[in-house]
Amino acid sequence: MKNEFNSEELLRRVTETKVSTGNERVRSITKRVVTDLFKTIEDFQVKPEEFWAAVQWLSRLGASGQAGLITAGLGFDRLLDILEDEADKRAGMASGTPRAIEGPLYIAGAPKSFYEARLDNGKMPGQLVVMEGVIRDTDGNPLSGALIDVWHANENGHYSHFDPSQEEYNLRRQITADQQGRYRFRSILPPGYAIPPNSPTAELFELLGRHGNRPAHIHFLISAAGRRALTTQVNIPGDTYIDDDFAFATRDGLVVTLETGASPAGYESLGIDGPFTRIRFDFKLQEAVNGEDAKHLGRYERAAG
Amino acid sequence: MKNEFNSEELLRRVTETKVSTGNERVRSITKRVVTDLFKTIEDFQVKPEEFWAAVQWLSRLGASGQAGLITAGLGFDRLLDILEDEADKRAGMASGTPRAIEGPLYIAGAPKSFYEARLDNGKMPGQLVVMEGVIRDTDGNPLSGALIDVWHANENGHYSHFDPSQEEYNLRRQITADQQGRYRFRSILPPGYAIPPNSPTAELFELLGRHGNRPAHIHFLISAAGRRALTTQVNIPGDTYIDDDFAFATRDGLVVTLETGASPAGYESLGIDGPFTRIRFDFKLQEAVNGEDAKHLGRYERAAG
Repeated sequence: MKNEFNSEELLRRVTETKVSTGNERVRSITKRVVTDLFKTIEDFQVKPEEFWAAVQWLSRLGASGQAGLITAGLGFDRLLDILEDEADKRAGMASGTPRAIEGPLYIAGAPKSFYEARLDNGKMPGQLVVMEGVIRDTDGNPLSGALIDVWHANENGHYSHFDPSQEEYNLRRQITADQQGRYRFRSILPPGYAIPPNSPTAELFELLGRHGNRPAHIHFLISAAGRRALTTQVNIPGDTYIDDDFAFATRDGLVVTLETGASPAGYESLGIDGPFTRIRFDFKLQEAVNGEDAKHLGRYERAAG
Repeated sequence: MKNEFNSEELLRRVTETKVSTGNERVRSITKRVVTDLFKTIEDFQVKPEEFWAAVQWLSRLGASGQAGLITAGLGFDRLLDILEDEADKRAGMASGTPRAIEGPLYIAGAPKSFYEARLDNGKMPGQLVVMEGVIRDTDGNPLSGALIDVWHANENGHYSHFDPSQEEYNLRRQITADQQGRYRFRSILPPGYAIPPNSPTAELFELLGRHGNRPAHIHFLISAAGRRALTTQVNIPGDTYIDDDFAFATRDGLVVTLETGASPAGYESLGIDGPFTRIRFDFKLQEAVNGEDAKHLGRYERAAG
């Protein structure tokens, strides 16, 4: 009966068989995940047709590039932020501007500019906005030469690079703060948006009875010498989903204030000649702990190590 | 502090938020899987860069079409068979020929023939074989008109349809058994093979320190009126990995015997004019429990309902 065994013996073979050392951490985590899934299948008496439907869904998910989107909807992205916040607290690290999830739509290599930038191409309908502020350390000192990557959705809730209808790097810029740590950019206030319909993510969310809406937000990746790189988002106030984000990404302290009817004086270099909406927001960066955490990298660049 | 919370409250929001009923089973199983993964991430203090490396791997896995291959390597396919065997035993169902995993390489629509078929195209190097036998019920009665789908790898361990170098449906046939339930086919004994190198599956297996070899085998999907469709494999004896299959699919009672030097008399219709290797193997099909389990369907067809 050497090839006949029960699920316990099968699990032992799956998790203990080896012909070389492998990576102990990958082995341990895989063992845990497989053990949990075996138990789930047994406890729920998952039928083969259910299992294979799930595998097909996973294939579609991977092929669609949405694996890094569904993680947000299932709370994993926020979980990682919570755990990092807790680790910082235990280490007694001063907290800067709260982290918020990166999402799957950051693209490196956006056009660079100094101090100020214009994100919109002038053809986008919506409310003209200037966001401006200072990048500081946790003591409030301005960080000269800080790097600010900013990216947000267009009027349809889509991001350039992932949306072929948009120009390359539309609504994406990398700004270098001036000597006083100041930045400013002009754009159009983005709307909230929902997960793509008819997608693997939408399929699961329908079965879960959940909505897939995200409140309006603007993404940032900010770094400066000696400071820990900060990935965050600010939220536009007034959005229906601001406290009910599909991705659980809204954070206290990251909902901006809109100052309508700001005077154009001093904003001519951004092509502004009438009243506009102003957002003032300073970012505070924590101290870097090691060289790695200071690097200006998106999550996948960081993972590729 | 309405948007600041710990991982426990996050998990509650992820698993309990809903705007419509959804599917209770999908909700429950998802809740279990997400809860387990949250706990794994916390227990192992999974770092963001580790998490995102895993998500990228999952994306590559999905995109490569290997989600249904890694399940075999992690034991899930065999687990489903073990659970079905146990359910049959509890229900007092007579066991027929043991099930074995389907694997990800079944393709419907193979060329049909009556009683006998030639699978090889005459250009394939290797040991000429005829496999023959009778499809029976669990009382030993022959099942006239049973349908036998047979498929196996070529001399390089690759399958037609997935390997563009092969003709369509090479080494795949659907045979209808004759009135005595008999079938026979001619082919070349396939070799064992390994998971594709430089693939997401190979990547994980290297980290796990596991080999990715499968012993030589031939796949079957067999059905007959009133009988439960049987998905199985037979193993060729003598393979190094016969008791150490990457997919844990070898089963007692499914290792065939090779009769070398069989006489060609009576095998002329298969183009045989000299000694060959014969495999004699009868399959026994269990009674069908409902209409569904009698259907002649691959696992993904079954999952699609």
